[in-house]
Amino acid sequence: MINRLDDLYEAIKQNPPKKIVIAAAEEKGIIKLVGDAVNLGIADFILVGDKEKIRALLIHEDIDYKNLEITDRPDHREAAEEAVKLVNEGKANVIMKGDLHTATFLKAVLDKNKGLRKGDLISQITVYEKMEGEGLQLLTDCAMNIAPSLEEKKQIINNAVDLALKLGYEKPRVALLSALEAVNIAIPDTVDAAILSKMADRGQIKNAVIDGPFALDNAISIDAARQKNIHGEVAGRADIVMVPNLQVGNALHKALTYFANKRIAAAIMGTTAPIVMTSRTDPVDTKLLSIALAIFVS
Amino acid sequence: MINRLDDLYEAIKQNPPKKIVIAAAEEKGIIKLVGDAVNLGIADFILVGDKEKIRALLIHEDIDYKNLEITDRPDHREAAEEAVKLVNEGKANVIMKGDLHTATFLKAVLDKNKGLRKGDLISQITVYEKMEGEGLQLLTDCAMNIAPSLEEKKQIINNAVDLALKLGYEKPRVALLSALEAVNIAIPDTVDAAILSKMADRGQIKNAVIDGPFALDNAISIDAARQKNIHGEVAGRADIVMVPNLQVGNALHKALTYFANKRIAAAIMGTTAPIVMTSRTDPVDTKLLSIALAIFVS
Repeated sequence: MINRLDDLYEAIKQNPPKKIVIAAAEEKGIIKLVGDAVNLGIADFILVGDKEKIRALLIHEDIDYKNLEITDRPDHREAAEEAVKLVNEGKANVIMKGDLHTATFLKAVLDKNKGLRKGDLISQITVYEKMEGEGLQLLTDCAMNIAPSLEEKKQIINNAVDLALKLGYEKPRVALLSALEAVNIAIPDTVDAAILSKMADRGQIKNAVIDGPFALDNAISIDAARQKNIHGEVAGRADIVMVPNLQVGNALHKALTYFANKRIAAAIMGTTAPIVMTSRTDPVDTKLLSIALAIFVS
Repeated sequence: MINRLDDLYEAIKQNPPKKIVIAAAEEKGIIKLVGDAVNLGIADFILVGDKEKIRALLIHEDIDYKNLEITDRPDHREAAEEAVKLVNEGKANVIMKGDLHTATFLKAVLDKNKGLRKGDLISQITVYEKMEGEGLQLLTDCAMNIAPSLEEKKQIINNAVDLALKLGYEKPRVALLSALEAVNIAIPDTVDAAILSKMADRGQIKNAVIDGPFALDNAISIDAARQKNIHGEVAGRADIVMVPNLQVGNALHKALTYFANKRIAAAIMGTTAPIVMTSRTDPVDTKLLSIALAIFVS
């Protein structure tokens, strides 16, 4: 069971080192991150991209590159395809987006024949620590799906439950978020939450206890749930919080960093191998934790 | 200029005491709050509701009620109408919702002939402190408007700007929030943000600098804005953050309390007198600060 984000680093070190392939690695921030991850001993890397630029950056950042594999693919589309191929061939365990457009990267990852598709949908999950000693909480989807349909929400839940199980939860508690805890026909999210809860009751979504709608307070605070007289296994004790749309997810993800100063790891689930897609503006700590999380679940 | 929430208490005490009328005050939490506010010296009260119950609660809570006016209106509709009437007659400066349904309370407040209507829309604003010494930030609308239209968003901005001006801002910086800082036709909020920004540029929304769309990070963090290469007066320095819908507002409001442990005051603007509508589950500190804020702007 992973109870703290730093536990990820410890857990990884119990196993033989795994490999991350980076598509289009020829960017200073990426190369610095590679150096940091190698120093921490959490991953080995295959760097795909413009070999000359990658080498120059490695030298400039004073990173010992003798143990790093570099594959020359200056073209972004080819770099993405090569990275996917290395995962499919078992030569890498995790794929990471480097300095190329998200669309170019995902096109290769989601290619129906040569890609890493598993289900129909990939989704993002933000992982952070609850209050001291209470374990991890997962927030989804903060980055990939703009306005998911009911069917897509079901898959977003499944992806998050998959991750929670890998982190050691036996039967994670999933809270479906809206602006309020009552079903209100004028707020379609609350209706979706009611439907998804019942689907889970009937075994149509497995390995999790699912309830909703909730407002954020009564999803994560037992006191707030009690004051509103909301009962059940999930109320106030959510392990997974599913937001109704990208606006809410993105705002909450940013609030965790900019209002609450919480440490964060981000995962992308729904493919045959974990994906790491960090943003240039993410703190280094977030980037390293996201790499560790991907390695851990791979 | 009000730079900290506690400054509200100090500022109020510079002026002769003002009066809050509470509709349906016959509830223990409300009466306790009245006692706390009287002890702090921030307001006088007129308690409208079931006189016998109110008296019994005042005695039970050991509150000196000799200086409190009590008006007997056991019926909720009548209590709300009486409270509104007292404001319209100049006998109270602020109206507060007691232990009655929100719909009953707002029906009296928004009555076209006898109510407290000013514009066409009332909206909620959450007020909290930025980082140490950087002043207050306003977040709107977290409670009233579910999915505001473009025209309604304009009025939500106007209500927040009104409040900011009263708090001492000369020309508040308004950031229009979405899930990202680019205009994306698939995300209608981003389009609304572009339109509203231009309306402000052309003087169609006054007394404020308005820009958007922003993601939360580049709205409130100068570093995040710089990293994304977003310029302008608002980027990273928002005084007012307008959310695209209630889901986002409610989640962020709750995140301020439950993730970030921030102190909060909540205002409702758009009427001829400020309204206080606290939730039973709000911390006492929030309730008192919200009363102080309403008194301050009245």
